[in-house]
Amino acid sequence: MSVEGAGAAEEARRAYDAKTKPRGSLGRLEDLGVRLAEIRGVVPRSLEATVVVAAGDHGVAVEGVSAYPQEVTAQMVANFAAGGAAINVLARQAGARLVLVDAGVAVPVVAEGVRSLRLGAGTSSFTRGPAMTETQARRGLEAGAALVDELDGVDVVALGEMGIGNTTSASAIAAALLDVAPEAVCGRGTGLDDAGLARKVDAVRRGLEANPARDALGVLAGLGGFEIAVLAGVVLGCARNRVAALLDGFITTAAALVATRLEPAAGDVLIASHRSPEPGHALLLDALGLEPLLDLGLRLGEGSGAALALPLLRSAVAILEEMATFADAGVTDAGR
Amino acid sequence: MSVEGAGAAEEARRAYDAKTKPRGSLGRLEDLGVRLAEIRGVVPRSLEATVVVAAGDHGVAVEGVSAYPQEVTAQMVANFAAGGAAINVLARQAGARLVLVDAGVAVPVVAEGVRSLRLGAGTSSFTRGPAMTETQARRGLEAGAALVDELDGVDVVALGEMGIGNTTSASAIAAALLDVAPEAVCGRGTGLDDAGLARKVDAVRRGLEANPARDALGVLAGLGGFEIAVLAGVVLGCARNRVAALLDGFITTAAALVATRLEPAAGDVLIASHRSPEPGHALLLDALGLEPLLDLGLRLGEGSGAALALPLLRSAVAILEEMATFADAGVTDAGR
Repeated sequence: MSVEGAGAAEEARRAYDAKTKPRGSLGRLEDLGVRLAEIRGVVPRSLEATVVVAAGDHGVAVEGVSAYPQEVTAQMVANFAAGGAAINVLARQAGARLVLVDAGVAVPVVAEGVRSLRLGAGTSSFTRGPAMTETQARRGLEAGAALVDELDGVDVVALGEMGIGNTTSASAIAAALLDVAPEAVCGRGTGLDDAGLARKVDAVRRGLEANPARDALGVLAGLGGFEIAVLAGVVLGCARNRVAALLDGFITTAAALVATRLEPAAGDVLIASHRSPEPGHALLLDALGLEPLLDLGLRLGEGSGAALALPLLRSAVAILEEMATFADAGVTDAGR
Repeated sequence: MSVEGAGAAEEARRAYDAKTKPRGSLGRLEDLGVRLAEIRGVVPRSLEATVVVAAGDHGVAVEGVSAYPQEVTAQMVANFAAGGAAINVLARQAGARLVLVDAGVAVPVVAEGVRSLRLGAGTSSFTRGPAMTETQARRGLEAGAALVDELDGVDVVALGEMGIGNTTSASAIAAALLDVAPEAVCGRGTGLDDAGLARKVDAVRRGLEANPARDALGVLAGLGGFEIAVLAGVVLGCARNRVAALLDGFITTAAALVATRLEPAAGDVLIASHRSPEPGHALLLDALGLEPLLDLGLRLGEGSGAALALPLLRSAVAILEEMATFADAGVTDAGR
């Protein structure tokens, strides 16, 4: 972490200690404010938040690895654009702006408010070869990073995704980068039955065989999704702009692992919002050294868990900005 | 639970299932909305929230069981009234009204916005006999319940407390009602060292000997605090008004256990906001069958954890009220 980051973190810790409460008694809320100061390089006085939801389709969906048909990806992006999805409600509740990105849905989603950063018309199935070319993967990373460059004055970007089949892609990425068996990372996603789960494990096993590269860019191109490439780029953009990247669940955390393997300093801007029931998520969080704020059994995606955690970030900042010190309030300080 | 409660819960579950997301994919957020419907007897369309912070002094504070001197209770109530404490900031962030109650601080707190429901000038030390009379305990219960009767249109009351020495009182109540050893329920409160913890365990042990009654009213009078009596009354008032009682940490949960021992139906309106590091809190939550929403290492009190959980309740309601259904949005429903 930078010199400014360390100084701001120290200043935030001292500011919490001067407030009229026992030292450290707001627990992880104080750690969160210190972390935001460290990331931003300055003690935050307010919190400007944007949720970026990237969507893409996955060739591997033809393997029967999702409870939903592929057409749902485009339908849900249209639902986001119309304001009717969970992430619309939760971003509004959290006072966050919502940016929608078509990173490569099978059929382009043309709707007001949907930004086209399309890398293709859905990926190829990774069971028979790479999901995308390395050129596509690089373009996705650059487009995601450039998106953050544009978000002037933002303190935190919450990451969200939509893509039928994308827990299979995230499982394959996790298995490849963490060198674990498909069975250890595959879960039921948004509602698979036993047969579906078996198909998913088999698809990941075949994907790992068909795509032997284990460097980050090779894994992203071989096993990734277009939305995962863009989101990994968003994390890289957060790192170079000193903006906090608030992860949602399994898929966004897989994107963050790709980003940190490409650029280790990206790990310094990550905050984990919630713990997903997907078995691979715990492995990814451990690998990134992250402890999530919430554990509510969320398995929707879209950035919903990240949006639900945003009020905690806002409260951490508000305590720093608005609460009285022992000196202000004439309260006896026990000094601990 | 009532017929209306069961019907409203069923209606809320059906409403969540019709929304454009996989069934149950918002996990405990959906359970929370169902629970609010069950408590209110109707599917909530908005959420009116009030934080009630009751303060009182404790005779047992003379035993050296707190890191802070007794004068801090009154100083902090003045700080609440001036708007400078953590709970002021967090209640404002959560869009909740704040009601301050002097339930029996050693020296009366006269400040605008502080409601006097004083049961006395601090309790007696329970190490030598009862902390208060049964008449005082009954008056506290009635005053707390009457306070909720007045809160017209409120959907949830978040409980908070302030009182130097009150984790010792809550520990003694927990040990008495759950029939466990003082060592199993005593923790470091807001910052006790080893010697302080030993004094606390010893004070609780002497309190249990000096106050042999084990019925709820006897335990409350023998070992309780004035703010705990009022807060147990608030829980009873919530039950009779079908209002959710959102518990904070160890002390408010001890008050809730007293209330449920007096009136078992009071258990139906409880929601646990967070898990405190105090060892006795886990035992109380188990006894009440509650699973907290947050686990952030909070040990401040004042209702701070309850206020931090309020945005989750608001989001659960907003999803019910604002999100599109599969039919509205033309999204394919996999039916699971």
